[in-house]
Amino acid sequence: MNFIIIGGDAAGMSAASRAKRTDPNLEVIVLEQTQDVSYSACGMPYNIADPVRPIDDLVVRKAEVFRQKQGIDLRVGYRVEAIDPSRRTVSGTGVDGRPFVLAYDRLLIATGARPAIPDVPGIDSDGVVALKNLDDGRRIKALLRGRNADRVVILGMGYIALEMAEALRSRGIAVSLVKPRPGLLPWMAPELSAVVGEELAANGVVRHDGHRLERIEARGERLRVVGDRLDLTADMVLAAVGVVPNSEMAAAAGLALGPGQAVAVDRGLQTSVPDIYAAGDCADAFHVVTGQRVYIPLALRANRAGWAAADNVCGRRAEVDGVAGTAVFKVFNLEVARTGLTVDEAAAAGFDPVSVAVTTSSRAHAHPGAGKIHVHLVGDRSSGRLLGAQMVGTEGAAHRINAAAVALHARMTVDAFAQTDLSYAPPFGPVWDPLLTAANQLLKKI
Amino acid sequence: MNFIIIGGDAAGMSAASRAKRTDPNLEVIVLEQTQDVSYSACGMPYNIADPVRPIDDLVVRKAEVFRQKQGIDLRVGYRVEAIDPSRRTVSGTGVDGRPFVLAYDRLLIATGARPAIPDVPGIDSDGVVALKNLDDGRRIKALLRGRNADRVVILGMGYIALEMAEALRSRGIAVSLVKPRPGLLPWMAPELSAVVGEELAANGVVRHDGHRLERIEARGERLRVVGDRLDLTADMVLAAVGVVPNSEMAAAAGLALGPGQAVAVDRGLQTSVPDIYAAGDCADAFHVVTGQRVYIPLALRANRAGWAAADNVCGRRAEVDGVAGTAVFKVFNLEVARTGLTVDEAAAAGFDPVSVAVTTSSRAHAHPGAGKIHVHLVGDRSSGRLLGAQMVGTEGAAHRINAAAVALHARMTVDAFAQTDLSYAPPFGPVWDPLLTAANQLLKKI
Repeated sequence: MNFIIIGGDAAGMSAASRAKRTDPNLEVIVLEQTQDVSYSACGMPYNIADPVRPIDDLVVRKAEVFRQKQGIDLRVGYRVEAIDPSRRTVSGTGVDGRPFVLAYDRLLIATGARPAIPDVPGIDSDGVVALKNLDDGRRIKALLRGRNADRVVILGMGYIALEMAEALRSRGIAVSLVKPRPGLLPWMAPELSAVVGEELAANGVVRHDGHRLERIEARGERLRVVGDRLDLTADMVLAAVGVVPNSEMAAAAGLALGPGQAVAVDRGLQTSVPDIYAAGDCADAFHVVTGQRVYIPLALRANRAGWAAADNVCGRRAEVDGVAGTAVFKVFNLEVARTGLTVDEAAAAGFDPVSVAVTTSSRAHAHPGAGKIHVHLVGDRSSGRLLGAQMVGTEGAAHRINAAAVALHARMTVDAFAQTDLSYAPPFGPVWDPLLTAANQLLKKI
Repeated sequence: MNFIIIGGDAAGMSAASRAKRTDPNLEVIVLEQTQDVSYSACGMPYNIADPVRPIDDLVVRKAEVFRQKQGIDLRVGYRVEAIDPSRRTVSGTGVDGRPFVLAYDRLLIATGARPAIPDVPGIDSDGVVALKNLDDGRRIKALLRGRNADRVVILGMGYIALEMAEALRSRGIAVSLVKPRPGLLPWMAPELSAVVGEELAANGVVRHDGHRLERIEARGERLRVVGDRLDLTADMVLAAVGVVPNSEMAAAAGLALGPGQAVAVDRGLQTSVPDIYAAGDCADAFHVVTGQRVYIPLALRANRAGWAAADNVCGRRAEVDGVAGTAVFKVFNLEVARTGLTVDEAAAAGFDPVSVAVTTSSRAHAHPGAGKIHVHLVGDRSSGRLLGAQMVGTEGAAHRINAAAVALHARMTVDAFAQTDLSYAPPFGPVWDPLLTAANQLLKKI
């Protein structure tokens, strides 16, 4: 039996390794269109921050290791262009430019996502880049060096936009962020997003939110970014307005799509077509709070889904619980974290949301070096359930959020969460953990 | 109606404030034998580390605030010596040295704990100290300064001993730790306690474990610490071998005691005698994993129990879920954390424990500044339940442990915990959080 995997990134290589470990006799073929497999994509902003460090530092495992030590038939430079479920084949163009057709017994679609690109004139100009794969990282580093860049415009204000803003500022580059809708991090409670806004301003990042982009003009090695009440010049423009799943090929093969046009999968990662699985940034997931399908492409889910798909292919029935939407990023001296639903998401899912925002110290009374930590909690008035949490702070947000994430998986009430025995020592927080203080406040409103 | 509270520390003042907020007409009388109320006792090692900063920095709220702003009848310098449940009175010695008798309607025993003192000749010598209340902190700071101390012997190797070792080393003082039983932190998995041992050694702390203490001899302003194969000289000896609950008065009044001779309370903080509650370091608790009574005196529990006792006094039925034994401390550059049961505790409670220890990076692949993080997880082979976790690392242990603590409250299986959607970003950890990596490994053994 063979197992063909389209895509050699997080989900694809996790699945390949897991399948080969579980069943060494299984023929595992990975078809990857780029030359790079198994690298820390999320680490690229931090690598780009350092002009000297080669981007290849981010490679976790080289292709040869997968081939020689793990026995995976890993083919880089292979682009799959079509899936034919009736004939059980995949076809495309090989590394030599010649067409290929391969028959599969089990297939995993792990084609990932690609950056969304704003549809404006000039977006294809030289110097307009996106950040998704290692080649993008190479291109950006070369561009910054080649143009001796001192001004960059970033389209978008999400995680990657903010991480890249920090990376570029650390190289002394002036950074402007542009997006059409007003407001920073609209999913975030205003009390918390204001803190992030202050941090960006304090670090010299200029925000232009509420400015529609109209066109980009190339002027030699410079770019002019023109929009509604907007006229900026830059050496490089980075498009970081989100990602879209690479699901067109799956759709063309007749597979059902879910939210955000991602490939729809069940808890066993099976698509709507027998023997075809999908995992990673191209696929959807169930949300642990709502039970509904969502498209939240993040790295842990991709790895976990790759494993589970491989287990099912190998005959070990595996189901994944779903995602809580837990995410964290660093922006300058702040940790920003979330899990679960926002108030708006909760209302849309049929809950009766009630929320609270509290600010406490990051360390105990009188402990030196303390900063502020801001917590926003969302609960359901009718059931008393905890629905979501957001945190922003100079320290202690990134890992603290996980306590709330576990509570969401356990479907805990705010009352039960407020009773949990969380850690305390003066260097790490107040006696009442900020999450508990917020939960106690939220209880008064439920 | 009146509510008399014996003890004005964490549990007592939490109860007093909560009761007065809930029922402003309630007469709330707090009898505190020292002059200090409402201070960060856990902050004392960090204050002692700084020769200049006054210990009174640790005072959170002054007595006048409780009296004038909150309307609490707070009497400092009042020592309660007896409780008479049949007459519903407490009696003792007042600030003026005169005896007093007060009748109560509801009584809260919040007498706390005191340091255990090794019973050896010379233990009462000048220069032998313990660290529990603010006066102890004052005494230690004065002693270190007055004797221009450069050598301290600490009896014990628990949290406080290690925190004080760090504090004293930061002042350039030579520190020796002494305890009779061999091994550092015997509750900890050997792979993890070895890391703590290396950290102590790297910071010049000398350990003498497995050396029975025989006597202390005063030699002017110096102390000689003599034991089995042990002869040390010090300017100060700190006894930090644990605490014992101040429960003798409760026992004399006929109240039932629980583990560790702590006052036995139910989930509503009621003692075995009607209208008498107990909370804080003098009282026991139920363990959320075993459901059994335990004596684990920690600050969060004291505050929470004080609140719940006050709610019950005010007619708002309140129960507390119990303790998971979550604790964290800092020792030099390490964060050390635990929650739930050790393997030995699990076996003693009737579980069939299985455990795993893993070491991962504290940050993502190739992210600069990473350290190691060590995780030990304990599960139950028969039920699959997660029973406990321990972590040691240069970063990321203190708050991460809370994810496991919440899982214990939710009685999660290791399988369910391994499925949780925990946060990931390169500066804060690997894609698979160290807790998840450990859970995945533990699953293989269950």
